[in-house]
Amino acid sequence: MANNQDKFKQVIAHAKEYGYIFSSSEIYDGLSAVYDYGQNGVELKNNIKDYWWKSMTQLHQNIVGLDAAILMHPKTWKASGHVDAFNDPLIDNKDSKKRYRADVLVEDYVEKLEQKVQKEIKKAKKRFGDDFDEAQFVNTHPRVVKYRKRSKDILERLAKSLTDENLADVKALIEELEIACPATGSKNWTDVKQFNLMFGTKMGASSESASDLYLRPETAQGIFVNFSNVQKTGRMKIPFGIAQIGKAFRNEIVARQFIFRQREFEQMEMQFFVKPGEELKWFEYWKDQRQAWHDSLGLDKENYRFHDHDKLAHYANAATDIEFDFPFGFKELEGIHSRTDFDLKAHEELSGKKLQFYDHEDGKSYTPYVIETSIGLDRMFLAVFSAALQDETLDDGSSRTVLKLPSILAPVKVAVLPLLKRDGLPEIAEQIVEDLKWDFNVIYDEKDAVGRRYRRQDAAGTPFCVTVDHDSKTDNSVTIRYRDSMTQKRVKISELKSILEAELSYKKWLKTQ
Amino acid sequence: MANNQDKFKQVIAHAKEYGYIFSSSEIYDGLSAVYDYGQNGVELKNNIKDYWWKSMTQLHQNIVGLDAAILMHPKTWKASGHVDAFNDPLIDNKDSKKRYRADVLVEDYVEKLEQKVQKEIKKAKKRFGDDFDEAQFVNTHPRVVKYRKRSKDILERLAKSLTDENLADVKALIEELEIACPATGSKNWTDVKQFNLMFGTKMGASSESASDLYLRPETAQGIFVNFSNVQKTGRMKIPFGIAQIGKAFRNEIVARQFIFRQREFEQMEMQFFVKPGEELKWFEYWKDQRQAWHDSLGLDKENYRFHDHDKLAHYANAATDIEFDFPFGFKELEGIHSRTDFDLKAHEELSGKKLQFYDHEDGKSYTPYVIETSIGLDRMFLAVFSAALQDETLDDGSSRTVLKLPSILAPVKVAVLPLLKRDGLPEIAEQIVEDLKWDFNVIYDEKDAVGRRYRRQDAAGTPFCVTVDHDSKTDNSVTIRYRDSMTQKRVKISELKSILEAELSYKKWLKTQ
Repeated sequence: MANNQDKFKQVIAHAKEYGYIFSSSEIYDGLSAVYDYGQNGVELKNNIKDYWWKSMTQLHQNIVGLDAAILMHPKTWKASGHVDAFNDPLIDNKDSKKRYRADVLVEDYVEKLEQKVQKEIKKAKKRFGDDFDEAQFVNTHPRVVKYRKRSKDILERLAKSLTDENLADVKALIEELEIACPATGSKNWTDVKQFNLMFGTKMGASSESASDLYLRPETAQGIFVNFSNVQKTGRMKIPFGIAQIGKAFRNEIVARQFIFRQREFEQMEMQFFVKPGEELKWFEYWKDQRQAWHDSLGLDKENYRFHDHDKLAHYANAATDIEFDFPFGFKELEGIHSRTDFDLKAHEELSGKKLQFYDHEDGKSYTPYVIETSIGLDRMFLAVFSAALQDETLDDGSSRTVLKLPSILAPVKVAVLPLLKRDGLPEIAEQIVEDLKWDFNVIYDEKDAVGRRYRRQDAAGTPFCVTVDHDSKTDNSVTIRYRDSMTQKRVKISELKSILEAELSYKKWLKTQ
Repeated sequence: MANNQDKFKQVIAHAKEYGYIFSSSEIYDGLSAVYDYGQNGVELKNNIKDYWWKSMTQLHQNIVGLDAAILMHPKTWKASGHVDAFNDPLIDNKDSKKRYRADVLVEDYVEKLEQKVQKEIKKAKKRFGDDFDEAQFVNTHPRVVKYRKRSKDILERLAKSLTDENLADVKALIEELEIACPATGSKNWTDVKQFNLMFGTKMGASSESASDLYLRPETAQGIFVNFSNVQKTGRMKIPFGIAQIGKAFRNEIVARQFIFRQREFEQMEMQFFVKPGEELKWFEYWKDQRQAWHDSLGLDKENYRFHDHDKLAHYANAATDIEFDFPFGFKELEGIHSRTDFDLKAHEELSGKKLQFYDHEDGKSYTPYVIETSIGLDRMFLAVFSAALQDETLDDGSSRTVLKLPSILAPVKVAVLPLLKRDGLPEIAEQIVEDLKWDFNVIYDEKDAVGRRYRRQDAAGTPFCVTVDHDSKTDNSVTIRYRDSMTQKRVKISELKSILEAELSYKKWLKTQ
């Protein structure tokens, strides 16, 4: 646990130090739960986008793209259910005037019980040393058993109250647990109320004619309202999919865990339209496809697990999450949902426009069912980045910090390094940069000893270093150094381009698709 | 004029018919001045982004990227001047309660005078036939001379009143011209007031703790507030640049001209930081570079002109626009501005943080000056699209509509067409798609006669068609058809990849950079 927290801190610090992620508006002390992507971050993010986009639209003849605007007609969010049901339960403290998420107050209480459990475990470990059996201990130690039982009861009651929309009971729970305002200690609470998570804004100037708009809380609806436009102008036949990458916004009250839960975030979504009755077959197909996509990046499989939903959202008849082992534990990275015809039907009803597909074989029209794959781009970024960040002890006893990003996603592909800043070596290195820059993101670095430069590129995630030395002047060869293995290979300068093309081809990486 | 309007209508209709641009939320009758990019539009837009991004970050060792959030700390907009001075002059009609942009009401009045001029010209043309000398006519015909003089006087007075912030005189002008509410004819006007163009929203839930935020009205400030983060973590030395592509939002009261002026739009901006005193040299450098970028796309040079600003914004000491000949005339496509140290200094003052560069050679720190290149992505889209859309009469007297997009920007690169839907031709075509799809956006099309398929791909902008016929079965060759010249060439299937790579390499296209 403590170890994971250290890892998480290291991830955040490393992301800043190497130009991956900065706090938004940092010079003004930041904007809570909003982040900026730095010079390396934007490249990694773009590369993840490309990798997903190509796998969807370029590798599938029956999937096309879309880029709908963030601002949409407000009726969209009436149809989708977001106006009525996209809420968090909030509670105010009457004395401090501070506002909290009621469910989070309860969860924090439970977290404190768990901390007590961990303390007992630590104490016992110290006492018993190697003989300590943790599983047995937590099942038998009276205080630990009591804490765990209590936690379970509280969370079950909270879940039930929220599901039943019994907000009075959520308040009762807070009072029974004697939870106090974290800022002031006051226990003088208001009732719990639902608060809508959409960011609102107004379009138009006159108070009379201005319309209330929302920043979209999800990108999916942009696909649904454009279903007929794309189907007709693209001459698409069922089954077919529409893929989209874009920003969405949620006014989270408690936004935590770095870029995992941001108020402004980016989604990569694909809605796949199928014939009713065939949706569960396609649901399985897309589970397999999405797993293959993740597998193709070569991250440790231990990092992933599927989590099928027992409880389904009102619009779904099957749903699974792909969870990833983030530094703060397994959490949702991607969702795959069988959304039925809920969305298209809702838009049909509210707009009065038909959103159907005419099946020439059957000679009739129907409203398609939808399989959705939805992955958080920022979460994928964090998954790749945190899995890649490793501290290694080398054979000679020294250590290095290395960012083992899949090379297809790495911001900079090649660093070209003259061994020395003289003897014509910089000129040769610069010429290599000139030749490679059209096809790859290449940088030139001549500062510091070459070993130090290797370490810098290791930490920045650059998969290949090309070193120019005195032999290069006579035999036109250079050393290529591989980040992960640290092996070095002598190659001709003229071969560099084809070596890199082979390493960085989409075909090599996406072949499992 | 009429001809241009027809062209503009054709552009809008073609953009919809071929899946480039749809009205946002069209099933709800659209959201004014907001558009969605369809299956071809998103690809063209992404290709323009890539072309710009590569030219900036990959071809210049001293330019790196950034992706700052849309939501920023509100002090950002205080420092930039947007809170105080990003306004439009509005006027309400007291009877109809409708609100208008005061300057647009006046401009519409002048537009009507111009329409009268055009009517006179048309009449005279009809009367004089081939002998008609338009230049002489407009300089001598009494009514035309009067109209033109009057227009000039009105526009000059309007410009002066706005510059002087003399809003009372703008109202006086509207009353003197007896301008009526376009909806109702009432002349009962309120005073003219300034209205801020930023979209506002609120972050956080409690009325007390919620902060007023704005959707960024420009992307540039995200670069300025991150200046030190990027400079330090990226070890950048002056001169260097930061490039960014992203959305911005302006609550335009009058939003017209399709995607030219949208409420939600996208910018591609690069801020180049230089030593004070060297800014005008770099200003010229970037004018040249940006012209070369536009030239590299091969659009007719007649479409472009530079327009140096006589009047400079408060932050600038030199500025020029690259204007493009849109279907509605020459308008700003890109701006190149010497912004001095205005922005960095303003942020330094308000944040109390140093935004300076330490110059090792001089041994002292200074606040850099900034050259900005800022291009509207949607405007570039419209420029490329409208210049590419052409009606051609062919040698045989037939006609075709062709979208001559630069092939590097075209959404789909290759359509693979079996001549017939039998005899094993579809299987060969499908195998070609399989082989090419890893590197190019390729589609397969077997529907309709091949001539009709060529026309469809011409209109959609696909630069290359590959046709599989019966000979392909024996000699492994296919026909490549070039969209623009309509010439056809017989090539081996095994050569296709390298032929396309040569046509579509960034080096070929960006070589002038």
